[in-house]
Amino acid sequence: MTTSEEPPRPAVLLLSGGMDSTTLLALAVTKGFLIHALSFRYGQRHDLEVQAAARAAERYGVLKHVVLDIDLKSFGGSALTGAGIIPKDRPIDEKEIPVTYVPGRNTIFLSYAMAWAEVLGSSDLFIGVNSVDYSGYPDCRPEYIESFERMANLATRAAVGGQRLVVHSPFIRMSKREIIELGISLGVDYSETISCYDPTADGAACGHCDACQLRRKGFAEAGATDPARYAAAAPT
Amino acid sequence: MTTSEEPPRPAVLLLSGGMDSTTLLALAVTKGFLIHALSFRYGQRHDLEVQAAARAAERYGVLKHVVLDIDLKSFGGSALTGAGIIPKDRPIDEKEIPVTYVPGRNTIFLSYAMAWAEVLGSSDLFIGVNSVDYSGYPDCRPEYIESFERMANLATRAAVGGQRLVVHSPFIRMSKREIIELGISLGVDYSETISCYDPTADGAACGHCDACQLRRKGFAEAGATDPARYAAAAPT
Repeated sequence: MTTSEEPPRPAVLLLSGGMDSTTLLALAVTKGFLIHALSFRYGQRHDLEVQAAARAAERYGVLKHVVLDIDLKSFGGSALTGAGIIPKDRPIDEKEIPVTYVPGRNTIFLSYAMAWAEVLGSSDLFIGVNSVDYSGYPDCRPEYIESFERMANLATRAAVGGQRLVVHSPFIRMSKREIIELGISLGVDYSETISCYDPTADGAACGHCDACQLRRKGFAEAGATDPARYAAAAPT
Repeated sequence: MTTSEEPPRPAVLLLSGGMDSTTLLALAVTKGFLIHALSFRYGQRHDLEVQAAARAAERYGVLKHVVLDIDLKSFGGSALTGAGIIPKDRPIDEKEIPVTYVPGRNTIFLSYAMAWAEVLGSSDLFIGVNSVDYSGYPDCRPEYIESFERMANLATRAAVGGQRLVVHSPFIRMSKREIIELGISLGVDYSETISCYDPTADGAACGHCDACQLRRKGFAEAGATDPARYAAAAPT
């Protein structure tokens, strides 16, 4: 992290428009990084995420926001990219990999971020992965992120030149509650973030998918009100 | 590798349509793998590579050939994606990273291949990287490929389930001459492969870029005739 004595450093930040990555953006801006935000359209069911990412990018004055279209649909294999039904009100079992897991997603995202960082001469990547509530996702685990970082430090021209790339994942061992508490202290407007895997056509959250359940639990534990708009049928 | 007693195993093979990946395809088919070939349009200057890949995929009867459009141009940073001039007749200095190096390319390619393999239930990736003639490319080095493999074995659901992914890069320590000799023994039709970074509009190779120089040197050392069509101005 930079201190106020150092010149601002460019960084590439993966921005989905959800709670975690928006909080991450607020944190990285506070630390003085010059943010290059990267979002993806990857065949997910709705575009609201990317719209939320664009709003966050604007609000935090990122230097550049790139949205890449990538085609994960042609491989199939995930409920988030159209191959299955999104489960509702299921007990969140941290030992089981959810059907909403998208094979290779974080590796592909981080690979693009690494490529952009190299072009920019940046040695800092930010990703808002979180292993506590989503330990079912293999590519959210600390050992995975550490291994990606080691690989990235062999993959690039910068690495050959001795520049060390760091993958910052400050939330990886934090609970949703802790992330929300941090975000509130940083002034994050959570009404602008979207977490739901299956929102209504007008953008209301379903309240029943895994992501909604975890979000609501996090806000409840933090003793805060979730400003997300939920569909009428959602539990209160 | 499989033996004749084992049932054929699915594999994902990165196929550029160049000499190395076409030879790799011939080799993997000979070993009995069921090939899922993956090619990319990544903003390279010409589409002849992808056409050559499609011809090779058809000739070798791959199970499926997917061509993905990926956008590396939006990051810039390489002569191959439009940001610079392709050098001609330069002495090939193996210590220097060429301007034709595309940041993050092999990492992005391998990440997609890993994602597809996971969806297929495959544990075999094939990539035709070669560190001898291209030692200037950081993402062609053995230590890079080994590190990617370690990362992949933490990234996927299959890895969590104990399935071990292998990144096969059988050419990584072979010279161009050795690759060509192997390909000739396997019956590869090198007239159908394209290596040139800067071909003419009608598909003739320039004969002067790094890739043409290395190809010609490889054929000369193998004592074989290069069946590529070169532009009239090319050296003989």
